Amino acid sequence: MKPLKTAAFLLPLIKEKRPLIHHITNFVTVNDCANITLAIGASPIMAVHGREVEEVVLGASALVLNIGTPTSNSVESMLLAGEKANELGIPVILDPVGVGIAKLRSRAADNILSRVKIAVLRGNASEIRFLSGASIDAKGVDSICCGQNDDKIARELAAQLGCVVVITGEWDIISDGKKVYSTGNGHKMLTQITGTGCMISSLIAAFSAVSNNYLAAAMGGVLTMGIAGEAAYHSLGDREGPGTFKVRLFDQVYNLTADTINKFGIVTGR
Amino acid sequence: MKPLKTAAFLLPLIKEKRPLIHHITNFVTVNDCANITLAIGASPIMAVHGREVEEVVLGASALVLNIGTPTSNSVESMLLAGEKANELGIPVILDPVGVGIAKLRSRAADNILSRVKIAVLRGNASEIRFLSGASIDAKGVDSICCGQNDDKIARELAAQLGCVVVITGEWDIISDGKKVYSTGNGHKMLTQITGTGCMISSLIAAFSAVSNNYLAAAMGGVLTMGIAGEAAYHSLGDREGPGTFKVRLFDQVYNLTADTINKFGIVTGR
Amino acid sequence: MKPLKTAAFLLPLIKEKRPLIHHITNFVTVNDCANITLAIGASPIMAVHGREVEEVVLGASALVLNIGTPTSNSVESMLLAGEKANELGIPVILDPVGVGIAKLRSRAADNILSRVKIAVLRGNASEIRFLSGASIDAKGVDSICCGQNDDKIARELAAQLGCVVVITGEWDIISDGKKVYSTGNGHKMLTQITGTGCMISSLIAAFSAVSNNYLAAAMGGVLTMGIAGEAAYHSLGDREGPGTFKVRLFDQVYNLTADTINKFGIVTGR
Repeated sequence: MKPLKTAAFLLPLIKEKRPLIHHITNFVTVNDCANITLAIGASPIMAVHGREVEEVVLGASALVLNIGTPTSNSVESMLLAGEKANELGIPVILDPVGVGIAKLRSRAADNILSRVKIAVLRGNASEIRFLSGASIDAKGVDSICCGQNDDKIARELAAQLGCVVVITGEWDIISDGKKVYSTGNGHKMLTQITGTGCMISSLIAAFSAVSNNYLAAAMGGVLTMGIAGEAAYHSLGDREGPGTFKVRLFDQVYNLTADTINKFGIVTGR
Repeated sequence: MKPLKTAAFLLPLIKEKRPLIHHITNFVTVNDCANITLAIGASPIMAVHGREVEEVVLGASALVLNIGTPTSNSVESMLLAGEKANELGIPVILDPVGVGIAKLRSRAADNILSRVKIAVLRGNASEIRFLSGASIDAKGVDSICCGQNDDKIARELAAQLGCVVVITGEWDIISDGKKVYSTGNGHKMLTQITGTGCMISSLIAAFSAVSNNYLAAAMGGVLTMGIAGEAAYHSLGDREGPGTFKVRLFDQVYNLTADTINKFGIVTGR
Repeated sequence: MKPLKTAAFLLPLIKEKRPLIHHITNFVTVNDCANITLAIGASPIMAVHGREVEEVVLGASALVLNIGTPTSNSVESMLLAGEKANELGIPVILDPVGVGIAKLRSRAADNILSRVKIAVLRGNASEIRFLSGASIDAKGVDSICCGQNDDKIARELAAQLGCVVVITGEWDIISDGKKVYSTGNGHKMLTQITGTGCMISSLIAAFSAVSNNYLAAAMGGVLTMGIAGEAAYHSLGDREGPGTFKVRLFDQVYNLTADTINKFGIVTGR
C-alpha cells in the first residue's frame, strides 16, 4: 500500500484508540500542541519534570521531544523519557527547534540523537541541514554546502540515523533512508502563525502511536496539517487573517477524514 | 437559598468587585486560565516564584493551586502561598491535575492537602478517586474499588478534608460533606480542547472570591462552564470544530448573566 | 516628519525586512507575543536560557525583556542578553510587568535599568508611576503622590533614563524626555483579554527594529494595537465577546497598512 493510502487508513485508528501522546516541549506553543493532539483524536500529556517523565511515558503510545525552549532540566528529562520510551518500544519524535542558532541546542540535539533511538526527526530545512552537516563533519552551520539537495540530505540523514526524516517547507520532504517522497499541500499562511512545525510533530506522533510504519505516519502528520491549512485558508473572508486562520486550522484538523486525505493529498515519490 | 440561586446571585458581584485571583498553575493552560478569569469579570495574576508568591497573595481574593506541570520550585511556591492564604483567610482552590499518574504529583497533592486548608478541591473522577483512595488506605491507584460510587467518594472526601469537593464530568458532582449535588450542563466538545478543567477551577476561584459559601461558589464555576459550553456548541456552524468552540466559550462566559444561570442551570440535590 | 507619519512609514519596512525579535518573556502571554510579532510582519524568537541568550541576540534586531513571571534564572538571562544587545547596538524594550507588586520584580527592574540601556520602557500607569517614584526617592509605592501628572512622570523618567517612556491606558502617553504625545486609539475590550500590554511591547520592538527613531517606533506599536483593537471591536456581532475579539485583533494587526495608521491614528502632541 502506498504511504498516502496508509496514512489515510491510520487516521480513523487514531480516533478509535485515542492514544496518549507524551510531550516534553517548549512553553511557547505547548497549548497549541495539546489542542492539535486533541483535534486529531489523540490525547496529550505535557509532563516535563525529570522525576516523573519515566512514569508518564509508561502510559504513553508516543513521545515528542521538542527543544524549542531548552533548559538543562528539560533536556535531561528528554533523555530520561527517550531512553525509557526506547526500552518500551514507544516511538520517539524529535523536533530540533532552532538547532544551529545556539550551541546549547546543538548539544541537546546531539545528546538526544546519540542516546535515544528516534522514529521520526522533523525540522525545517535549516534545522535538518544543520544536523546533517554537523553529523558529517562537525564544522557547524558554515560547513553546509549550499548546493546540497534537500532530498539527498533527508535520505542520507535518515539512512545514517535509521529513522524517518521530515523537512517541512513549501514542499515537504519525507525519507526513510531509501525512498524519498515530497508532499505539496499547505499554504504560506501556515508560516504566519507560530507553532505550525511543533504541531506537525504532534500530529506525526499521533499517527506513529497507531502504526510502526513511521514513513506513512510522518506523511499522515504532514498531509493533515497541509490539507487542513489549505481548507482553513480558503475559508477566510475579507479582513480575516492569521487569528481566524489559526482557529479554523483546529476546526479543519478535527473534521479531516481518511477520504479527504486520499482525495486531496499531493504526494510525489522517488 | 438554594445553591443554584446563590451561584446566580454571586455572578454580578464578581463583575462589580473584580477580585484578583492568584494562580500558581501549569504552563500549558495558563493563558486560558487568565482569559477565563477576565471573561467572568475577575482579574488574574499568575506569579509563581517562591520569593514573591506570599507578597502577591496579600492582594488576592482567591488562590488557585494547579499541579498540571509540577516542579520542585512550583510545589514549594504553592505551599508558601497556600499557608499565607490560610493565614489571611483567602480561599484556596486545589486542582490536582494528573494526580495518580506519577508519584511526584501524588506527593505534591499530599503535601498541599496536609499543610494547606482547601476551600474547594476540583478534579475529574480518576483524580478524586485517587485522592480518596490514597487518603483512606494509602495503597495508590490499585486500591480503588471500581464499585465505589462517585457521589459517596465526593461526600466522604469533603467531610474528611473539611472542604467542598467537585468531580467534573458528564455529570458534575459537588459536595460539602453533607449534601451532594449534581449538575448536568455541558457538552462533550468541552473534552475536545485542553484546559477546560483548569478553567473551571479558575471560575470557582472567582466565585469563591466574593462569597464564603464555597458550595454555591463551586456550583457557580461548574454551571458557568457548562452553560457557556452548551451555548458555544450550539453556535457552531458547518465545518466548525474545537477551534471555533474554544473562542466562543470565552464569548459565552463573558456574556453569561445571573438570569441565564437561573434559567438553564440543571441541578439535582440529595 | 511628525512621529505619526514616521510610524506609518515604518510599517511596510517591518514587512519588508522581517526583523528577528528576541523575547525573554513570561510564560502566560508568550504565545500571543510570538503571534503578534508574526502578524505585524516580523519574526519572533523566545529563547530564555542563560547559556544561549547571548548567541540568540546576535541574530536579532530588537530585544524584549518582560518580567511578567520572573525567576532568578530569567532575570539573569535578561541582564546577559541586554548587555549583549547594548554592545551590539540592538534596541532593548523593557516591559516591567507587575513591578511594585513584589520586591522580586522591583529588584529585577532596578537591576535591568542599572545595567542595560533601554530604548523604550512601556508599562501601565501604576508600573511607570512606581518606577518613577522609586527612582526619585526610593520609598516605593507609597511615596507616589496621587496628584502627580502622568505626562510629567513620563517626561521626567524618560529624561532621567535617556529612553522613550510609554504609559498605556485609555489615553497612551509617549515621551522622549522632551516632547510628550498622547494617542487616543483603542477600546476598553483590550482590557478584557490578557497580554495586550505585552503584545504592545512586542509591536514596539518590531518598529524599533527598523528605525532608531524610538519615539516614532513606540508610537507605531501603540497605534497599531489601538487601531486594530477598535476595528476588532467594531467587527463583533451579537453574543460575541473577548474570545472572538482576540482572534480578530491578530487579523486586524495583520491587515493594517500605513494608510490606516495615517487616517485613523489619534495623536496630540505637546
